[in-house]
Amino acid sequence: MKTGFTMLSQSASSPARTGVLATAHGEVHTPVFCPVGSQASVKTLTPQEVRDTGAEMILSNTYHLYLRPGIELVESMGGLHRFMGWEGPILTDSGGFQVFSLSPLAKITDEGVTFKSHIDGSSHFLTPEGVVSYQQSLGSDIMMVLDDVPPHDGSEARVTAAVERTSAWAERCLKARTSKTQQLFCIIQGAVNPELRIKSATELARLDFDGFAIGGLSLGEDKQTTWNMLDVTIPHIPLNKPRYLMGVGSPEDIVEAVARGIDIFDSVLPTRVARNGGLYTASGRINIHNSAFKTQDRPIEEKCSCYTCRNFSAGYLAHLFRSSELLGLRLASIHNIYFLQSLTRCIRESIANGIFEGFKNEFLAIYRTVSEETRKQQKQKWLAKKSGL
Amino acid sequence: MKTGFTMLSQSASSPARTGVLATAHGEVHTPVFCPVGSQASVKTLTPQEVRDTGAEMILSNTYHLYLRPGIELVESMGGLHRFMGWEGPILTDSGGFQVFSLSPLAKITDEGVTFKSHIDGSSHFLTPEGVVSYQQSLGSDIMMVLDDVPPHDGSEARVTAAVERTSAWAERCLKARTSKTQQLFCIIQGAVNPELRIKSATELARLDFDGFAIGGLSLGEDKQTTWNMLDVTIPHIPLNKPRYLMGVGSPEDIVEAVARGIDIFDSVLPTRVARNGGLYTASGRINIHNSAFKTQDRPIEEKCSCYTCRNFSAGYLAHLFRSSELLGLRLASIHNIYFLQSLTRCIRESIANGIFEGFKNEFLAIYRTVSEETRKQQKQKWLAKKSGL
Repeated sequence: MKTGFTMLSQSASSPARTGVLATAHGEVHTPVFCPVGSQASVKTLTPQEVRDTGAEMILSNTYHLYLRPGIELVESMGGLHRFMGWEGPILTDSGGFQVFSLSPLAKITDEGVTFKSHIDGSSHFLTPEGVVSYQQSLGSDIMMVLDDVPPHDGSEARVTAAVERTSAWAERCLKARTSKTQQLFCIIQGAVNPELRIKSATELARLDFDGFAIGGLSLGEDKQTTWNMLDVTIPHIPLNKPRYLMGVGSPEDIVEAVARGIDIFDSVLPTRVARNGGLYTASGRINIHNSAFKTQDRPIEEKCSCYTCRNFSAGYLAHLFRSSELLGLRLASIHNIYFLQSLTRCIRESIANGIFEGFKNEFLAIYRTVSEETRKQQKQKWLAKKSGL
Repeated sequence: MKTGFTMLSQSASSPARTGVLATAHGEVHTPVFCPVGSQASVKTLTPQEVRDTGAEMILSNTYHLYLRPGIELVESMGGLHRFMGWEGPILTDSGGFQVFSLSPLAKITDEGVTFKSHIDGSSHFLTPEGVVSYQQSLGSDIMMVLDDVPPHDGSEARVTAAVERTSAWAERCLKARTSKTQQLFCIIQGAVNPELRIKSATELARLDFDGFAIGGLSLGEDKQTTWNMLDVTIPHIPLNKPRYLMGVGSPEDIVEAVARGIDIFDSVLPTRVARNGGLYTASGRINIHNSAFKTQDRPIEEKCSCYTCRNFSAGYLAHLFRSSELLGLRLASIHNIYFLQSLTRCIRESIANGIFEGFKNEFLAIYRTVSEETRKQQKQKWLAKKSGL
C-alpha cells in the first residue's frame, strides 16, 4: 500500500489547499481535525462514537502511553489500534511538548532529555531514537520526532539552541526509523523569531520527512504573532508535504490557519471546552450553564445533525450538566467534535470549489469569538495544570 | 391498550413465576431488573445503550426530578419519556424513601411530609395527592404511592404508625389518581416485624392497586431477616398482582428473591459498583483495579456478549480506570447492567422450563458473594452519603 500525501486542489487566492494523506490504516482528507486521545481514549467517547462524528484520524501521545500503561504492554496487546479499538489512522505525538510542559525540572542534553513522571515522580530518559522505537512499537501511522520546545518568550540563545538541537534530533529520528509503513513527521521550532523559524524549516526541509509540523505556537503569544510565524515558515516547507499545526485549535483558528496553508490540526480544546459546558454553534461558543437553556425544548443547534442534536434538547443537556450527570459530558463532546468535522468538511468543499475566501469571510463574520484576553487567561489556566490532558 | 400484569408460568417447587406486565409504553417480561436513572439519566449511558443491554423498563425518581429540573419543566418538554429520550416503560418512585434517607430533619404529619432539599436546603411539602399528580405530569407508566419509611430498627410504635400512615396515604393516592393509562403500585412497610408486615400487606390488598411493592428492606438488617420478611408477606399479596422488591439488588439477592415470588427489581448497585471498578462475572464480582487485569488480553468475561466484552480487553479497561478515563465507567456500567439482564433472562427461561430450582442452586454454588460484613459496611457508607444516587 502506497502511503503519503497527495495535493488535490489549491485555492487561487490563498495558500489553502485540499489533499489526501494515505496511511496504513486508511485515507485522511485534508484539511483535517484530529480529536485527541492522549491516554488511548478520546475523553468520554467510544471509538465508534468518534468515528460517527466524521473524524478520520485521531491523535495519541507517546509520553502518556510510555508512562501508563507502558509501551511494552500496549505492544503485547497487539499495538495501539487494537488496544483502544480504533481501526483508523493514528498520529502519535513524541512527547517532546509534554516533557517540557509537564516536567518543569526536565534536564536536556544533546543526548536526550531526563524528566520526572507527572504521575509518580519516577525518573526517565527519552532520546530521539527511543521515541521512534516506542512509536514503532505502538504502531501509529504518523510518528513525530522528539523536539526541544523552548518557551515562546525564551531568550534568543535558548531558542537558537532548541532549533539546532531539534534539527540534530530530527536527523537521528530519521536514521532510527526502520518501519516502512509508518510515516515520520519533523517539527519546526523557533518560538516567535522569524529568522529562527526559517532556519528550522530550511534545515529540516533538506531531510526526507513525510510531513512537517509547526510546534511551539499558540502557547501564550498574540494571535497575530502566531499567524506571522505561519506566514514566514510555510514557504520554506516543500509544497508536496503535509503541514501540521500542533495543538490548534478553535474553530476560528482552524479557518485562519487553513488560509495560510495548514493541512492537519489537533487539539484537546473541543472536548475540554465541552466538559466545561461550552458548545460550538455557527454563531459562536455558548455555555450550557446559561439559564436560558434550561427551558429550551430544541437542540443546541437546530441544523446540526450530530447524535446529540438529533436526540436531545438543550434543556435536557442543561439538566444533565446541572445534575453532574456524566452523560452531559459525552453529549457535549460529541457535538463539539462533530462541529469541527463539519467545519473541515465545508472548508475542503469550499477550497475544491474555489470559494474558500468567501466561506472564510462569512464564517468569521458570524462566529463570535472569545476575546484575546479571556483566551489567554484560559490557556494559562490549563497550562498550569499538571496533567495537561 | 390493555395494561396490567398477566402470570405466564409458575415454578412447581417455589413461589417463583414468570409474567408479562403490559404498560402504555410496551411490555415488560418478569422477573425483570430495572436500571435506575434517578435524575432522568441512567448514569453515564444513553437510552440506546441501556436498551442494548436488554433492559425493558427503567426507574426514575419523583423526589429528584421534583427538586431538579422541576416537574413542570419536564412536563413542558413533553413528559419524562421525551425529555430523556427513553421510549420504553418507566417506573417512578414516589420519593418517600428519599425524603426519609436524604433529609434527616423531615417532619411527618398525617397530612404529608415537610423536608429540606439536599441540593439547596429549601423547604418543601409532599402529600400523597401531590406525588400522584407529579407522577401523572411526568407520565411514568408505573407510579408509586407516597409511603412512610421507618428505620429497620425503629421502635414498634414508630413502625406501627408508619404502617397505618402508609395505608391511609395509599388510599388517598388511589383516590387522587385520574390517569387511566398509568398504573399505581402501593408499598408494604413494617420494617422487620412479621405481624406488621402482614398487617400492612393485608390492609393494602383490600384496595385495588395495580401492583404491590415491598419497601423498607435491605437497609441494614441481616440477609436472613430480609428473606423472612418476604416469606411472611408475599402470601398476603393477591396472586395475580406483580410484586416489586424495592432497591434490590445484587445478582445473588435477585435469585433468592425470585425464588420467594418477586417479579420486579431495581437497584443503583450495578452502576455504582461499576463506577468503582467492580464487575459481575459468573463466578462472582471482580475488581478491575486488581493488578492481574493489567495484562489480560481477553475480555472481562470470555462468554459475555455485552458491548464491552465484545470490543475491549480487561487490560484496556484496567488502563482506563487507572488513568481516570470516563470511558471506563461507561464500559463497566454496560457490562454490569447486561449481566443482570442476562441473569433475569436465564431466570425466566428456567422457570418457564420448570428447572428454576436447579438453575438457582447452580448459580449460587458458583457465584462468589461478598461477605455479609463487607456488604453491611458498604451499605452504611453509601446510605451516609448525602445524594443517595
